Amino acid sequence: MLRAAVVGGTGYGAVELIRLIDKHPHLQLNTVISHSQSGTEIEEIYPHLTNLIHITMDEWNIQKLAKIIDVVFFATPPGVSQKLVPECRQHGLQCIDLSGDFRLINPETYETWYAYSAAPQEYLNEATYGLTEIYGDDIKNSKLISNPGCYPTATLLALIPAVKQGWVKMDSIIIDGKSGVSGAGRKVSLATHFSEVNENLKAYKLGAHQHIPEIEQYLQQESKEPNTQVTFSTHLIPMTRGLMCSIYFDLTEKKTTEELINFYTEVYSNHPFIRIRPEGIFPATKEVSGSNYCDIGIHSDPRTGKVTIISVIDNLVKGASGQAIQNLNLMNGWDVRTGLLEIPIYP
Amino acid sequence: MLRAAVVGGTGYGAVELIRLIDKHPHLQLNTVISHSQSGTEIEEIYPHLTNLIHITMDEWNIQKLAKIIDVVFFATPPGVSQKLVPECRQHGLQCIDLSGDFRLINPETYETWYAYSAAPQEYLNEATYGLTEIYGDDIKNSKLISNPGCYPTATLLALIPAVKQGWVKMDSIIIDGKSGVSGAGRKVSLATHFSEVNENLKAYKLGAHQHIPEIEQYLQQESKEPNTQVTFSTHLIPMTRGLMCSIYFDLTEKKTTEELINFYTEVYSNHPFIRIRPEGIFPATKEVSGSNYCDIGIHSDPRTGKVTIISVIDNLVKGASGQAIQNLNLMNGWDVRTGLLEIPIYP
Amino acid sequence: MLRAAVVGGTGYGAVELIRLIDKHPHLQLNTVISHSQSGTEIEEIYPHLTNLIHITMDEWNIQKLAKIIDVVFFATPPGVSQKLVPECRQHGLQCIDLSGDFRLINPETYETWYAYSAAPQEYLNEATYGLTEIYGDDIKNSKLISNPGCYPTATLLALIPAVKQGWVKMDSIIIDGKSGVSGAGRKVSLATHFSEVNENLKAYKLGAHQHIPEIEQYLQQESKEPNTQVTFSTHLIPMTRGLMCSIYFDLTEKKTTEELINFYTEVYSNHPFIRIRPEGIFPATKEVSGSNYCDIGIHSDPRTGKVTIISVIDNLVKGASGQAIQNLNLMNGWDVRTGLLEIPIYP
Amino acid sequence: MLRAAVVGGTGYGAVELIRLIDKHPHLQLNTVISHSQSGTEIEEIYPHLTNLIHITMDEWNIQKLAKIIDVVFFATPPGVSQKLVPECRQHGLQCIDLSGDFRLINPETYETWYAYSAAPQEYLNEATYGLTEIYGDDIKNSKLISNPGCYPTATLLALIPAVKQGWVKMDSIIIDGKSGVSGAGRKVSLATHFSEVNENLKAYKLGAHQHIPEIEQYLQQESKEPNTQVTFSTHLIPMTRGLMCSIYFDLTEKKTTEELINFYTEVYSNHPFIRIRPEGIFPATKEVSGSNYCDIGIHSDPRTGKVTIISVIDNLVKGASGQAIQNLNLMNGWDVRTGLLEIPIYP
Repeated sequence: MLRAAVVGGTGYGAVELIRLIDKHPHLQLNTVISHSQSGTEIEEIYPHLTNLIHITMDEWNIQKLAKIIDVVFFATPPGVSQKLVPECRQHGLQCIDLSGDFRLINPETYETWYAYSAAPQEYLNEATYGLTEIYGDDIKNSKLISNPGCYPTATLLALIPAVKQGWVKMDSIIIDGKSGVSGAGRKVSLATHFSEVNENLKAYKLGAHQHIPEIEQYLQQESKEPNTQVTFSTHLIPMTRGLMCSIYFDLTEKKTTEELINFYTEVYSNHPFIRIRPEGIFPATKEVSGSNYCDIGIHSDPRTGKVTIISVIDNLVKGASGQAIQNLNLMNGWDVRTGLLEIPIYP
Repeated sequence: MLRAAVVGGTGYGAVELIRLIDKHPHLQLNTVISHSQSGTEIEEIYPHLTNLIHITMDEWNIQKLAKIIDVVFFATPPGVSQKLVPECRQHGLQCIDLSGDFRLINPETYETWYAYSAAPQEYLNEATYGLTEIYGDDIKNSKLISNPGCYPTATLLALIPAVKQGWVKMDSIIIDGKSGVSGAGRKVSLATHFSEVNENLKAYKLGAHQHIPEIEQYLQQESKEPNTQVTFSTHLIPMTRGLMCSIYFDLTEKKTTEELINFYTEVYSNHPFIRIRPEGIFPATKEVSGSNYCDIGIHSDPRTGKVTIISVIDNLVKGASGQAIQNLNLMNGWDVRTGLLEIPIYP
Repeated sequence: MLRAAVVGGTGYGAVELIRLIDKHPHLQLNTVISHSQSGTEIEEIYPHLTNLIHITMDEWNIQKLAKIIDVVFFATPPGVSQKLVPECRQHGLQCIDLSGDFRLINPETYETWYAYSAAPQEYLNEATYGLTEIYGDDIKNSKLISNPGCYPTATLLALIPAVKQGWVKMDSIIIDGKSGVSGAGRKVSLATHFSEVNENLKAYKLGAHQHIPEIEQYLQQESKEPNTQVTFSTHLIPMTRGLMCSIYFDLTEKKTTEELINFYTEVYSNHPFIRIRPEGIFPATKEVSGSNYCDIGIHSDPRTGKVTIISVIDNLVKGASGQAIQNLNLMNGWDVRTGLLEIPIYP
Repeated sequence: MLRAAVVGGTGYGAVELIRLIDKHPHLQLNTVISHSQSGTEIEEIYPHLTNLIHITMDEWNIQKLAKIIDVVFFATPPGVSQKLVPECRQHGLQCIDLSGDFRLINPETYETWYAYSAAPQEYLNEATYGLTEIYGDDIKNSKLISNPGCYPTATLLALIPAVKQGWVKMDSIIIDGKSGVSGAGRKVSLATHFSEVNENLKAYKLGAHQHIPEIEQYLQQESKEPNTQVTFSTHLIPMTRGLMCSIYFDLTEKKTTEELINFYTEVYSNHPFIRIRPEGIFPATKEVSGSNYCDIGIHSDPRTGKVTIISVIDNLVKGASGQAIQNLNLMNGWDVRTGLLEIPIYP
């Protein structure tokens, strides 16, 4: 049994971690850290936890934590985990960071897109990018995981198999991202006000989203084309959970829908959380709601020669807390499905 | 390990049963019966089950079922289970009926409100009303459970403790029911068309809902006032899951909010799925979403002397499939929480 | 042509006033006052006004206003209009206040429920309660209108005809209020965060809503029963616009549904914005969306002897800005329908 | 005053036409044709029309219509108007067809994509494509308008100005379409069931939508590149009204965002219903809700050299009934804004 702490206790990432840790047979939630709500019972903030989680939120104190905790999850805003992870690693704690602080290898890129100072280079080097299905071998040997962003997860799982084969014209990639509102967190703002979002559809951060360099970094790495740049736009969907990336690209050689589906099915055959839909069927976000699945539909248009891939996840599970648990499973030699094998909630 | 069949395989009640059976350590889903979709893989109808449930739906055949099944769940429209339950009982199968066919003791009342012929008297007599927290002792010894309706579950759990004490003026009860759309099932109709329901709020079936006689039957039984009649109205809320009853009544003797909360907390102290909110706090449906909890808030108005109780459930879990599992746990001597102890999905 | 100013320019009440003033043949929008956004073009805050309303928001300045304005609408938080209305009245401007500052005759009641100091008694005395269909004769002769709250509008229009006849047992009234989120205004808060409200249903302010004394004041006045007290609860519905009151009461003498519907139809026969539904039909909020209608359905239960009335409005139109325009029409001798005769938006 | 008939009386297109005709100073709604509901009062089907529209729906009868009607609007399923328009034209009636029956010049293309026989060639030749801002001169002289589809309206208004300049690489165009559910009409189906659509996001008809040949036909015509083919996918958004096209293409020559915005602003300077957003601002569907506006935001990415255009409309207004009225205004020499100059409903 590993003893876990969650840092960033009042956000949606944290509260989803709490739900998943509670289900996990080898994890015990021990501590929830919240700077703003230290001293408060978590069930006062989240009444759905009444009678289920009896924890008073605490301030960060590494001396205290190091004695009672084995693994720390960071569900914190940018700029926070980069300060706390070094302390944890020095005490030998396993760390999984759900923020963007350790995702970009190049500190300058981080500083450009996040407008914060970057994490210390030593820890950037140590961190392993936790895209489980792709980098599983590295994750098994890591103690510090940089958990991927929600859009990069849906995008990279959909693109990397074809990219590695050299089938994708790397300057043709367009990613039309669509996310439910929980992706914006629990912080109040006009942008997440119900009356502004409901019965509305809004594009935001065109060409300016901090997930762009993250996507490009791994596409460059897998394609060996260092100048790979994607066109990426994001849209706010009037729903709470769920994320879809509609991805368009040109093929370098002709591939039918059937060939692509067969190839993806084969590539992911040992990965229980990736489900490839049959020809002519495309996944909907509700089909993965509350679960760690990434469902993918593929269409190679015989008319235009372009490929469209539809990739859906629950942004709070496979796009954040679920993938964190999945990574922890690998890090500790447990079955990758431990605590995560659950049927999505439908409807 | 009990082997389970679900009848009515394409509806929301059935698909939620499938989710919950899959989580249950002592249950194995063996058969899904669907008259309209016999021969179809269930994952073709419900892609969220892809790779998770491999079952081809089947026609009803008691000879075949009796050999491979121990318990049958009926998630069927009115008039169906009353024909199939007798066959099951003759073969010794445990039965849990989620429809209204066995809820009304008086066949004429059933025929008036449901406009179908009633079930055979012998089986009406045998059936136990599965309101778990109230009738647990009877449920333990039953093989045929009539699972309560969603509105009666939320209403009776909120009212019966006070009614049994004689604190409720029985001619003063008003129940303002509010339900998400999944309560209307998966059948297509203009009433559940997205463009008609979304950004809309509609009252329906005023004084005419088939849950009225069910509520009155048990209030009469517990109050010993045979003429108890409630005012009950229902409203369609633009959300998928969740049900709230806002219940109003006059007290027969003065009770403060604090006294009522203390009393309810005591009554339900050994019932893990009932959570009483502290004074001034009222539950929201999202706080029980995806879970078997019934959360209750109580307000005794010092100005008007009237009591308001807010009772919320997930209509598909505690209001249907979850309570069915809870009852099965009692019937088989398992811990009442088996397979159900899960944190609600939030947000 | 009257020249109008709107005070409180960035809220939803103001922006709806701007929409309605723009349609009105005898009104010209001249000035928008916003303390927080003074100096900003309104179309920067509300891009839907692009190319349509070219107004730079301004600070309050009565000297300047008095020269260029004939009528001032206040769509301001509590405590604001009580300070500005006296200045306007001293300069002879017509005033319509959409806030609660002039609704409660008794200053102490205001101070208890609003937690602000009350408006000067002289102006409380001058103000006319703008429930158009009921107090039209007074409104015609007034220069200072206190526009009703959204819940009181839906409630009082539904109750007053029966109350005036003495048909309502005045200690039996229960009002189950249900409102879309725009009723809470545009201010950001966790309570209006999309992820908290969507797919959720929440009761709030039980027995504590500031509309309670407003409803009671006019029910007392019309019934001549000074101790009239109502049970009033409010629920937040996951939709933007629309408000429903489900109202329950005991009759003092037997009346059938048909009798009540005929009576209400007669009472409101010269009032184009009140529409009484036929027996067995109940209105939905979408049926009045974007319009000034108040639609009412009535059910007298032959079993229980209780009456249920369902009353729906668009909270931002008949519940606020539309009724304000309707009152202005009366004040200036125009047809009450001027600028308001429009088909609701459906779906 | 022209006398109007609406054919297809129970659908959303028709009911929106009724709303807009009612506002129009030169139009009088005389007849509503509905095959399925002939003999029924329209307010029985649509209670929001209570007291406002007193029309009994009728069967189609050209002899009767020709005597009392000047203009006929068809809001009918595919295959219907092609049979009725010839009769109308023979009697000299003005016709505006909101269906797809007259949109595709090539009958074989129609038959391939719609799976119906095409309209008679004579009438295909007579029909004018009613994309008002682009083909206004032709519309002025036409008596038979083929009103554009919702996706083509948003797409073509966004693309044609750049296409005509030769700035668009015609084989690079990707259109990611997103629509509210009202676009699917009022017919009941599982695809529009609230519980299936709400809190869900679904891609549909990838590369198979009947609006593809319509878009390509006009892009080919304007670009003079006969082989122009677009990649077009559509997504169902959990909202009722509103449509967005996110359009991506490569430039043939470098253009900055500023240059493009200035050019579009100039092109559309005399077209009041097209509003170009300033740099860095993108329109949301709610900003045009209930109105005839098409709002456009443009981004030319300096990193990738690709252009993204966000184009939003209310699918039922500019995407259908509003544009129909706009066309009728031109056909009759009225100001193009007649009956349409209204502020969008917000929020």
